[in-house]
Amino acid sequence: MAMQEEKEREKSIVDSAASDTSLQNAVQGETDFFHPADMADHLENLSPQEQLSVLENMPAEDAAEALAELDEDLAGDVLERLKPERATEILSEMSPDDAADVLDEVQQEHRNVLLSRMDEEDAEELRRLMSFDADTAGGIMNTEIIRLRETLTADEAILEIRHGMEEDREVAYYAYVVDRKDILTGVLSLRDLMLSRPGTMLRDAIVDQDVITVRYDTDREEVARVMSRYNFMALPVVDYEGRLLGVATYDDIMDIIQDEASEDMLGMVGAGQDETVDTPWRDSVRMRLPWLVVNMATSALSAFVVYLFEGAIADMALLAVLMPMVANQAGNTGQQALAVMIRQLATERFETRKAWCAVLREGKIGLFAGFIMAMIACVGVCVFSSSFSLGLVMSAALLGDMLLGALAGSAIPLIFRAIGRDPAQASSIFLTALTDSGGFFIFLGLASAFLL
Amino acid sequence: MAMQEEKEREKSIVDSAASDTSLQNAVQGETDFFHPADMADHLENLSPQEQLSVLENMPAEDAAEALAELDEDLAGDVLERLKPERATEILSEMSPDDAADVLDEVQQEHRNVLLSRMDEEDAEELRRLMSFDADTAGGIMNTEIIRLRETLTADEAILEIRHGMEEDREVAYYAYVVDRKDILTGVLSLRDLMLSRPGTMLRDAIVDQDVITVRYDTDREEVARVMSRYNFMALPVVDYEGRLLGVATYDDIMDIIQDEASEDMLGMVGAGQDETVDTPWRDSVRMRLPWLVVNMATSALSAFVVYLFEGAIADMALLAVLMPMVANQAGNTGQQALAVMIRQLATERFETRKAWCAVLREGKIGLFAGFIMAMIACVGVCVFSSSFSLGLVMSAALLGDMLLGALAGSAIPLIFRAIGRDPAQASSIFLTALTDSGGFFIFLGLASAFLL
Repeated sequence: MAMQEEKEREKSIVDSAASDTSLQNAVQGETDFFHPADMADHLENLSPQEQLSVLENMPAEDAAEALAELDEDLAGDVLERLKPERATEILSEMSPDDAADVLDEVQQEHRNVLLSRMDEEDAEELRRLMSFDADTAGGIMNTEIIRLRETLTADEAILEIRHGMEEDREVAYYAYVVDRKDILTGVLSLRDLMLSRPGTMLRDAIVDQDVITVRYDTDREEVARVMSRYNFMALPVVDYEGRLLGVATYDDIMDIIQDEASEDMLGMVGAGQDETVDTPWRDSVRMRLPWLVVNMATSALSAFVVYLFEGAIADMALLAVLMPMVANQAGNTGQQALAVMIRQLATERFETRKAWCAVLREGKIGLFAGFIMAMIACVGVCVFSSSFSLGLVMSAALLGDMLLGALAGSAIPLIFRAIGRDPAQASSIFLTALTDSGGFFIFLGLASAFLL
Repeated sequence: MAMQEEKEREKSIVDSAASDTSLQNAVQGETDFFHPADMADHLENLSPQEQLSVLENMPAEDAAEALAELDEDLAGDVLERLKPERATEILSEMSPDDAADVLDEVQQEHRNVLLSRMDEEDAEELRRLMSFDADTAGGIMNTEIIRLRETLTADEAILEIRHGMEEDREVAYYAYVVDRKDILTGVLSLRDLMLSRPGTMLRDAIVDQDVITVRYDTDREEVARVMSRYNFMALPVVDYEGRLLGVATYDDIMDIIQDEASEDMLGMVGAGQDETVDTPWRDSVRMRLPWLVVNMATSALSAFVVYLFEGAIADMALLAVLMPMVANQAGNTGQQALAVMIRQLATERFETRKAWCAVLREGKIGLFAGFIMAMIACVGVCVFSSSFSLGLVMSAALLGDMLLGALAGSAIPLIFRAIGRDPAQASSIFLTALTDSGGFFIFLGLASAFLL
């Protein structure tokens, strides 16, 4: 029901927009009544043949926008199947960063054919953009920016912008001021420009600016972090000499922020961090299997702990009944701590001192929650087994293992990070290994010592 | 090491900005050499007394920006402790949406004192903003927007904007065109305006627009989803009659996107969805304990399954050694499927048919990975126990439980959503209950039937 409601709500938002426009288009006889994101959705649901025919018959500009919104692999496929002249036409209409992303997915040979048909300067730009690592600032930056020499006056600048506007710059809310070596010296919003006195030289308009920039090889997740920290709409990308290369914009990083936050959730349990429901299932098996094997190995260690107490279990099979409860409860406690910690590491810098305070905090939570759960378990086991001493052993093991889980869950990501690993990757698997073997050891050990 | 490196890299980005500016400030004798986000960090690390003295002595405008970047509870505390005249001064400098958020955290009585000292019109605006639910579009929207009547001409509009600019509108890249009933009829970027012929009436400049809007009571996560889908920088918020109330902007939703994506990770394991390492530990216990109790109850069910086979375990204690391995392995398989599914539900709409295809896909992965793990386990168990039949039972149980885990992991969030529950909340707990009891039942059942 709720699912239905939600879908309809979403639909109504889009429909209201779509119906307005279809009305207008009926009047104007146009076919572009979709927003590019909707058009991309529409394309995804068509057969390959239909995709081609739709893209052949719509204005190249709209096709370019729709292609930019498509999944890159799919867009690459489509591009390979289009006639080269049409593909080139559409590529030329795309913003260079989007075009480079899509071209990256096209087979080398076909890519060269397409590039050779393009305007030489555009092709050069695309080759240059493709040379940046897709996961860095260089790989996501837009190059169609307004770039102004600092020796211009405000009115000269406005004239230059109005003149250059025909080219439809993608990032058109800021103008970037550079010196004669192309080194970025300041940023002005169009509003700043409109408000400057006409004769002001740009150099004087930017005199007290501190421009925050990133280098082209900065990881894109770091770019997203800086932009979201400072609420920037656009962040200039420079080379090692400070020369302006392009600008990373808010729309590029919204997806990164979303991806990054949920990547951890997948990484924790050893799934591929960029898996979606559209990933071919064989690829998923390939990505997950290594961690399943690791999990098998670590759970064999826990099994070995149980094996050490095989005699105790043969004497008192009830121990095998209660033992998984201890491990499970501590595992859950640990995963709560783990999730809080990984989220923190994903969103904020975190001084070492504060990080260990957070472990202490989880320890307190584990101890307190463990105490309450131990009380409940003690009563439950006493009633069930009529053995007060078994109840006490169960409580003590639960308390001990939950404390272990809380400390391990919060410490594992910090330790991983300290040794240079991704804090999330497979953290849940290692945590479970600890809480399982710890729980089995404490519970069976106490039982052997006090009950048998 | 990596942690160190990362911190230094981050620091260098900020330092380079800070040092540039401190140089400039040394020249200009100013004290505001922090970006508001950095200033907010700085404030958080000061004692309450120091916070007050810093905020008393800096320009009200800078104090306003820093306060807007602070955590809302902390900002509220600080505001309560400032002298009322200073607090009012700072509030007046904040953008109304930020001011309303902070005031919401101030005690009722003190809030009334502050509001009574403010300009009557501003106070009215704040009261109105505070009346919106903080989790809706109305709660996050900015009201300082450029609003133009559709009967203006382009040059009249530019004049009006340049005149109104002194008030420092927060959302200054778009102008919103309304009719005489204040109903939103179109949006123009400043660039569009600059490029329009001077005499064009705004009504004619917006004739073929389809404006996508949200209503003030739309959930803020839905607002974030629409904005990130269409890559909007700003999304107009309207009432039921279509009258323009304000605008949600990209900077408001970046935090929402990030929070929402990682909320699921916490929700899955039954932690509080808005927990951070700064949450008081007692609050964390209060949020997590109910789910720990649920986990205890579900794991008692799994324990009951083992209890049914107590006799079998007493006969063959080795079963208790292998039994947790089956459950653990299936649990991990299920959590991989769960994570992929929850991520998908968080980021995309998802037709029912496609959703069940995704379950099928996970089933295939579970079956295939299960088959491989079963092979490995069979060899391992045969070597370890010298019993081929135990190896076969282990493999069969592993394969069956891993398939169960994969199907359950992908189906649970869909089922939760279908019955109107949050798809993520405690999903991991229910999954583990299924894979544990399923694994114990299949393994011990097969062992009883074929080995004893």
